[in-house]
Amino acid sequence: MTTASPTVVVAASAPADLPAILDAARSVSVFNDEEVNTVDELFQGYLKDPVVSGYNFLSCEDGDALLGFACWGPTALSQGAADLYWICTSQSAQGRGVAAELFEAVRREVEAVGRWLIVIWTSSRDEYGPARRFYLRMGCALQTQIADFYARGEDLCVYVKRIE
Amino acid sequence: MTTASPTVVVAASAPADLPAILDAARSVSVFNDEEVNTVDELFQGYLKDPVVSGYNFLSCEDGDALLGFACWGPTALSQGAADLYWICTSQSAQGRGVAAELFEAVRREVEAVGRWLIVIWTSSRDEYGPARRFYLRMGCALQTQIADFYARGEDLCVYVKRIE
Repeated sequence: MTTASPTVVVAASAPADLPAILDAARSVSVFNDEEVNTVDELFQGYLKDPVVSGYNFLSCEDGDALLGFACWGPTALSQGAADLYWICTSQSAQGRGVAAELFEAVRREVEAVGRWLIVIWTSSRDEYGPARRFYLRMGCALQTQIADFYARGEDLCVYVKRIE
Repeated sequence: MTTASPTVVVAASAPADLPAILDAARSVSVFNDEEVNTVDELFQGYLKDPVVSGYNFLSCEDGDALLGFACWGPTALSQGAADLYWICTSQSAQGRGVAAELFEAVRREVEAVGRWLIVIWTSSRDEYGPARRFYLRMGCALQTQIADFYARGEDLCVYVKRIE
């Protein structure tokens, strides 16, 4: 894995980032239309009020170019857990360490709000193999795998990162 | 466990059931104010539109008396899973098989919408011991337990019921 260049910055997403965020989500083949629409909905909640909606967006940018984004939020009814809903690197920015920068930024924000667990729900589908290996590289453990959760033959994989 | 009497009926909750539902939630000591407020919020979503909100409520009644309620919904982005968010028997109706009636009604509804998994998130706290034993009696399996998920020393227990 290469390291992101010094001009790459991760910060809270600006309202104007939405079109580039949706483009990034569409650029990677793993997300279907329903999933891209979900990103749009969560971003509307974030713009309205991150605390009320529970959705926080981070953008990774190099100058004006959006390289990727992440969306996380405190888990409802929990004091310790946070959900990492999305982490996505634009197809054209793959291999530059963008996802690792985003993951580290999410980890810092989760720690800053006093939480100690990052929980990731993802799919067992082959297309998500790179994502699953990425979570393991980031120090997440595969907590459980629920067979046929998403669809027949498509399991839910739950990864957990503990912030010590 | 006793069987519910023949006059006990489980059906989709009516708008007028809300006060009795909140009373039932308050009557059992395990739910705190935040959790009771969550029931209220989910019920508003159910009244507005069960499909859009994803929340379905069932009431178990004996004549005019509400004995308990359940709330479930299809899991977002999943074709197979449904979440059982709440199942609650009023303190005064404990021991009459109300929860088993509600669970069976949820199972039928989940099956009727073509889903095959009921997923239950619950706490490892001692007060939830009866609930955890209930899920096992209903044929659920303890899928995983995530340490310190809700709070330090309070784990998440995930139960799964497969509808064959």
